[in-house]
Amino acid sequence: MNFSNFDRQMMATALQLAARGRYSTSPNPRVGCVICRDAKVIAQGWHQRAGDGHAEVNALAQLSDTRASTVYVTLEPCSHQGRTPPCADTLINAGVSRVVVASEDPNPLVAGRGIARLQQAGIQVDVGLMAVQAEALNVGFMRRMRGGLPWLRLKSASSIDGRTAMASGESQWITGPEARADVQKLRAQSCAILSGVETILHDDAALTVRPQSFSADDPAVLALTEPWRQPLRVIVDSSLRTPSTATLFAAGGELVIATRVTNIKRHKPLIAAGATIVVIDDDGRGKVSLPAVMKYLADRSCNEVLLEAGAVLAGAALRAGLVDEWFLYMAPCLMGSSGRPLIDWPMTAMSEQQAIDILDIRAVGKDWRIQCRVPKLAEPQ
Amino acid sequence: MNFSNFDRQMMATALQLAARGRYSTSPNPRVGCVICRDAKVIAQGWHQRAGDGHAEVNALAQLSDTRASTVYVTLEPCSHQGRTPPCADTLINAGVSRVVVASEDPNPLVAGRGIARLQQAGIQVDVGLMAVQAEALNVGFMRRMRGGLPWLRLKSASSIDGRTAMASGESQWITGPEARADVQKLRAQSCAILSGVETILHDDAALTVRPQSFSADDPAVLALTEPWRQPLRVIVDSSLRTPSTATLFAAGGELVIATRVTNIKRHKPLIAAGATIVVIDDDGRGKVSLPAVMKYLADRSCNEVLLEAGAVLAGAALRAGLVDEWFLYMAPCLMGSSGRPLIDWPMTAMSEQQAIDILDIRAVGKDWRIQCRVPKLAEPQ
Repeated sequence: MNFSNFDRQMMATALQLAARGRYSTSPNPRVGCVICRDAKVIAQGWHQRAGDGHAEVNALAQLSDTRASTVYVTLEPCSHQGRTPPCADTLINAGVSRVVVASEDPNPLVAGRGIARLQQAGIQVDVGLMAVQAEALNVGFMRRMRGGLPWLRLKSASSIDGRTAMASGESQWITGPEARADVQKLRAQSCAILSGVETILHDDAALTVRPQSFSADDPAVLALTEPWRQPLRVIVDSSLRTPSTATLFAAGGELVIATRVTNIKRHKPLIAAGATIVVIDDDGRGKVSLPAVMKYLADRSCNEVLLEAGAVLAGAALRAGLVDEWFLYMAPCLMGSSGRPLIDWPMTAMSEQQAIDILDIRAVGKDWRIQCRVPKLAEPQ
Repeated sequence: MNFSNFDRQMMATALQLAARGRYSTSPNPRVGCVICRDAKVIAQGWHQRAGDGHAEVNALAQLSDTRASTVYVTLEPCSHQGRTPPCADTLINAGVSRVVVASEDPNPLVAGRGIARLQQAGIQVDVGLMAVQAEALNVGFMRRMRGGLPWLRLKSASSIDGRTAMASGESQWITGPEARADVQKLRAQSCAILSGVETILHDDAALTVRPQSFSADDPAVLALTEPWRQPLRVIVDSSLRTPSTATLFAAGGELVIATRVTNIKRHKPLIAAGATIVVIDDDGRGKVSLPAVMKYLADRSCNEVLLEAGAVLAGAALRAGLVDEWFLYMAPCLMGSSGRPLIDWPMTAMSEQQAIDILDIRAVGKDWRIQCRVPKLAEPQ
């Protein structure tokens, strides 16, 4: 299929619309839609929240006459009855003449059936325009629907010499307010924030999204209506050391503590304080298995997970091959050779080194953000 | 003084001409010159090598009639008899009508006298056009002429997690060929390469400039005629452990070993192998004093010095406040938490952290080059 420049412009607009749902659609994917007739835009829509209208439906709702129109949609229209009726049927009933799709929906309930249904109804369907961008917009959803684990983003902050804290543990604040606001955006687009009990004991972090700390000119912030979705917070705490007085419990959003402790009596005070306790498989060394935590998060429909943890948990996730993407905020300072390491991962030979693909380096306030992908050398255990 | 756009264009050209001398003029500064008449360029010149013609003289030599012309020169014309006659006199004799100068020459033998001489002869002299760029081109010369030490550039190579080698010392190669070629350019523009005996014992480095490894489209490489100037090589070796069989001795260029050993018998084999032995002051802990080494290099007319050393010597130079600029080549990999630190500098509190100004981050082959300035918190000891 050769797409025209007009097709490209329309799909680019649909992708921008889809991105407005960055902080709100999960567990659903972000989807945008533009409807045209006679090379003019006649309606636009995007999906805001699970249970609300899909992008195509929101766009069609703006029109009294929908016949002979072309529909640009970033994801294959659904073919199944979910919380809303199948979009493919709605498009057929609307009498549209052409549907341009960026990427197929890997959801096993759809997986080409939406496209087939449209074609069977005599509608011209063109698939694959800006598919790479559409995939990137829903990297976690795509991964999970294809039977994988959630997309795991690691966030770290260090000095230029790769230190995250003094030997004493002293660390606040390494990075400036702009970098911390940037991390808030990573949190907001995540279905879950994963951390470790050491971070809770040391920093007493709330791990919540604080919308007021965001850039007010972010289209995905402007598009949002209250209430803010707070990501699920999951604390890896093998021996249940999280204090029931932690700030975590006072702050909003669901809180899960993943543990190896099976003694219900020890669960009770934490449950009373508001947490859900989940007993997770052993990693073979008496600790919570991180792949099992990721599996639990996939089962809970988490698409994108943000790992905000210290060097030990971050190192364990990297070593287990679970980390897909890494945002390293590098502060312009030296913290010295006695400081704590960035990633706890002892290696003895150069041949053991873990390759990292650096995608982007940019200034964020006084700090520098290094965005990386972690190539999968081996399948996750 | 308000300069015209034409003035700016001409001085920018003169600065580009000056930069052709990047690898060859030392201990002299890099200087370029453009001569115009009736808003047209009639001659260009630059200084290539100490003892050869100065930029103004090289440009004037191309003209039979030099009267009523405007001369753009990146550094104040000299007023003293050096290896060549004073350029101020040459310009006066040539009958030029206006001289535009980027920056004054801080050389105590000049220091405004060149400008005064031209003015006394009735020539219009305008000073300060693109002075910042002109200073940057000769950062070491300017520093030294103002009575300071050489400009010290530190070069390091590390992984993203700030490691330079495995615990065993295994390290070659962290960075790729493009980064190593970039380091060759840093070497070539330096008057001296400073290293430590540990680097020699471990890597058996030659520390020479290998012109064939450069980019052939570098104007300063194209401009050069043989022979290449090899920087002075200085090894900090407090207890004289450098083996006389080291590759250093076979490779070209002068070799100095800076030591605390005063026993002439121990100097002899190294002198016989081709080194100069210099006994340097004590740092108070039985080691060679780095500020004293820098003073020695200033006395030897070194403008820019490149420090290529391990974490210990680099840390000592940073702690002594001697490092002005830092080129960190960061390889896209993790080398693990048991690896050797980037900079040996133990700190115990966040308040001790050393601020670093990041000026530029760019890709060099597969690696990333982070160019920094090290703010002076305290005067060098």
